[in-house]
Amino acid sequence: MPAQPAQPTQSPVTVLGLGLMGTALASALLKAGHPTTVWNRTAAKTGPLTAQGATPADTARDAVTASPLTIVCLTTNENVRALLTPEAEALAGRTVVNLTNGTPAQARELADWAAAHGISYIDGGIMAVPQMIATPGAYILYSGTDEAAFATHRPTLEALADTKWVGKDPGLAALYDLSLLTGMYGMALGVAQAFALIGSEGIPAREFAPLLRDWVVAMTDGIVPGTAEAVDNDQHLTDVSNLAMNREAFPNFLQAYADQGLRTEMFEPFQGLLDRAVDEGHGADGLSRLVTLLKQN
Amino acid sequence: MPAQPAQPTQSPVTVLGLGLMGTALASALLKAGHPTTVWNRTAAKTGPLTAQGATPADTARDAVTASPLTIVCLTTNENVRALLTPEAEALAGRTVVNLTNGTPAQARELADWAAAHGISYIDGGIMAVPQMIATPGAYILYSGTDEAAFATHRPTLEALADTKWVGKDPGLAALYDLSLLTGMYGMALGVAQAFALIGSEGIPAREFAPLLRDWVVAMTDGIVPGTAEAVDNDQHLTDVSNLAMNREAFPNFLQAYADQGLRTEMFEPFQGLLDRAVDEGHGADGLSRLVTLLKQN
Repeated sequence: MPAQPAQPTQSPVTVLGLGLMGTALASALLKAGHPTTVWNRTAAKTGPLTAQGATPADTARDAVTASPLTIVCLTTNENVRALLTPEAEALAGRTVVNLTNGTPAQARELADWAAAHGISYIDGGIMAVPQMIATPGAYILYSGTDEAAFATHRPTLEALADTKWVGKDPGLAALYDLSLLTGMYGMALGVAQAFALIGSEGIPAREFAPLLRDWVVAMTDGIVPGTAEAVDNDQHLTDVSNLAMNREAFPNFLQAYADQGLRTEMFEPFQGLLDRAVDEGHGADGLSRLVTLLKQN
Repeated sequence: MPAQPAQPTQSPVTVLGLGLMGTALASALLKAGHPTTVWNRTAAKTGPLTAQGATPADTARDAVTASPLTIVCLTTNENVRALLTPEAEALAGRTVVNLTNGTPAQARELADWAAAHGISYIDGGIMAVPQMIATPGAYILYSGTDEAAFATHRPTLEALADTKWVGKDPGLAALYDLSLLTGMYGMALGVAQAFALIGSEGIPAREFAPLLRDWVVAMTDGIVPGTAEAVDNDQHLTDVSNLAMNREAFPNFLQAYADQGLRTEMFEPFQGLLDRAVDEGHGADGLSRLVTLLKQN
């Protein structure tokens, strides 16, 4: 297939890092008609994108000087720091959008480094797997001190996924991202243990899945807004399912896991948390109280 | 308010144990017109139900002999065993539906005891909090060797919540119940940690809740059926989000929890599980592989 010429009206953009996600991002930009320069430590990864019309850069320096906006998506922020540090001068006056997974503290450090070199730095958290890029439902969280730079490049970023600006503290996008993914990891762990438990009696997972899906969704619908209200009001008393009752019931879970040949260690800390909640006098409170108990003393 | 006379066409039923749940069950039976006999270790708890038309029994013996069907809802199956053991002769030829929270092994033990005394035993798991009894969406899982007894009493049990028969192994209702609640506990733990993390920067929980709700629901919609298919096919390879990637990313989560003043111990075992998954050669597999890794070696 011949390379498609980029539409000249779209703003040029550079993508550094062509793993599965970086490749999906560059591909979406190309499809939206942006002249797209790509670079990867292992140059071979530029091949498929070049076939789609991307311009491969020989060096990171060449890449970042080709566009007013550079999008970085590596495996760690340590790698981002190592890659960008030698390019500080080349990046001065340009914008970096960092979509690498990381912590709020890492984002703030990179923002400080960028500010010291006259670089506009926007941190982002992608709420999608690569296959979901540029499809409905996917969105990317953004934050950074230079909201004007975000406004300038927003039309370009919209080619990747819906954009959600979460604030001027550069750490906020990572905070939101990690918080949302934490909710997902908890759910996924519960779902995995649930499938292991039902599977211990040879019940097909497919038979159980609709019940589990409906139950977890219904509980999420109730627990998330209920917890939010309780947390914001700092009022955790409940007449529904209190921590004392949950604490009494939970040994049945650990016992059943063991009886059915499953490992218990994923949920032992939860028993410890329930025990502590009751020991510290919160037995009449609902699950929302756990939010405060998850803070360090 | 004067007590309502029960409609004589409805089958009589006895409820033992009048905690919040037992009271909700008895109340639903009364509203559906069943002559309802109630008993509780602490007799004072019968008062509100007597006002609704229930007949309080002086002794557990009087209670179980008043009806062909006795529903038991205590705090533990140890209490159920202690309560029913002296009534074995009185219960012979009758049906016991045990809605006490417990493990599959406990249900099977009680079923064996009942069978030895000529008692039809049905175990149940209530997928509702007391406030949801007799409202749409609530259901109760049932299992037991005597499916005919279940069929006989099903019209009475329908007054409590939708009925879901899950099989002739008496342990199955508890297995399904614990599996569904395990999914919920995982989700609730993730949600609590997520609210704690977002709250560490003073973001109101109510502002974050819609994002969290939508994200967890969307992920549940994808992960539950996807995991079921992978587990049933024993085919865990993925091109979406593999365990090696999750393992690399997860230290960022534990680091961010610590950075933001949160406890990390709820999610440390998850890091251990991801590490083990990769160490044992499953890095290219998806989260569904965790189901097999949660089994004891």
